[in-house]
Amino acid sequence: MTGMFNKPSNYPSRLLEEAVDAINSLPGIGKRTALRLALHLLRQPAENVHHFTEAIDSLRDNVRYCSICRMISDGDICPVCADPHRDHRTVCVVENVRDVMSIENTGQYRGVYHVLGGIISPINGIGPSDLTINELVSRISDLCEEGGAVNGVPGKEGNPGGVEVILALSGDVEGETTSFYIYRQLARFNISVSSLARGLGFGDDLEYADELTLGRSIVNRQPFRP
Amino acid sequence: MTGMFNKPSNYPSRLLEEAVDAINSLPGIGKRTALRLALHLLRQPAENVHHFTEAIDSLRDNVRYCSICRMISDGDICPVCADPHRDHRTVCVVENVRDVMSIENTGQYRGVYHVLGGIISPINGIGPSDLTINELVSRISDLCEEGGAVNGVPGKEGNPGGVEVILALSGDVEGETTSFYIYRQLARFNISVSSLARGLGFGDDLEYADELTLGRSIVNRQPFRP
Repeated sequence: MTGMFNKPSNYPSRLLEEAVDAINSLPGIGKRTALRLALHLLRQPAENVHHFTEAIDSLRDNVRYCSICRMISDGDICPVCADPHRDHRTVCVVENVRDVMSIENTGQYRGVYHVLGGIISPINGIGPSDLTINELVSRISDLCEEGGAVNGVPGKEGNPGGVEVILALSGDVEGETTSFYIYRQLARFNISVSSLARGLGFGDDLEYADELTLGRSIVNRQPFRP
Repeated sequence: MTGMFNKPSNYPSRLLEEAVDAINSLPGIGKRTALRLALHLLRQPAENVHHFTEAIDSLRDNVRYCSICRMISDGDICPVCADPHRDHRTVCVVENVRDVMSIENTGQYRGVYHVLGGIISPINGIGPSDLTINELVSRISDLCEEGGAVNGVPGKEGNPGGVEVILALSGDVEGETTSFYIYRQLARFNISVSSLARGLGFGDDLEYADELTLGRSIVNRQPFRP
């Protein structure tokens, strides 16, 4: 004996099934959660549901990316790139939009960004040409040609052009590969290239740190600043 | 020093913020997950995103409810109510659409349903008139007037009309209150009213059962059927 909704489908309505399938297609949302969300939306006033879907459609259809750094932006140039008080000679290279938001939330960075839009990952078929690496190279090239002068402010002393690229990619194999590839692409410019400091997190307990992190923390130990 | 996106808002784009807020309004979806989902949708082809939002709009705008049992349905009458092989004199009263799907998935029930659309909950401002209790009463009244004959098949022996109402509501205070209210409303009909069996789940360990469930399981013990 089988239930009415077991076959041909588990759902009492094709409309419900299509909505559940659509919600289920989101990453991390299973069938049960999708059903719960679909039935929640069904209980809301129609205008709330339309507002919900319009916000998503509008994001997808009208989103723009900063023509300089490729960050999501409402205008042609994002607020960071448009800000004359930021250091436009320090370019922090990140994988995605969320990384920019994370770094901005620290309130500790006054340079600008370059969003790669992904990471080199042969297993997922993502090569350097799928990312904004060429845009980064030409952007750095322009900065160096200007002698690092941006918005009329001349470059730093020492390093001609005063340009610094910070490779702020993740510490896994793909991140390291991408960092190395970009490092090689930028080798012909006379700039500094740095990467994020790695070590124990603030408040971390030595006992529970993984060996790789702890080992690197000892090798790359820093002067004690009380 | 604060990041560019800390104020006036955390988001680099108003469109992104509106989409995140919309997704964040779903129950159980926090800000971080909403941002992750919004950026996921942004990476999808536009037609996939439109398909996603259309499925949700279509569910909300075109959904219909069975005119007999108030279950979600593509037509005026749901497949269960339209099925001549179901027992239309046994009406299982449930809180919502998901409960119908859960019971159907057991494959153990051949009667029909009545979806209340909620549960009596004074704290949430939900009274009997917000539910389909009046519809249930008039439905049972009709069944009794017909002498329990449905689709030309006469009622069961014994109980005149052969009508049974199963109160399949949750076991908490609100569920018990709703069950009792419906029981009182149906008292004037000469029908059987039953509720779901409660006891230890199959495979449950005595040691870990809560005292209330274990106590009731002993009091309501059943004949051993090897």
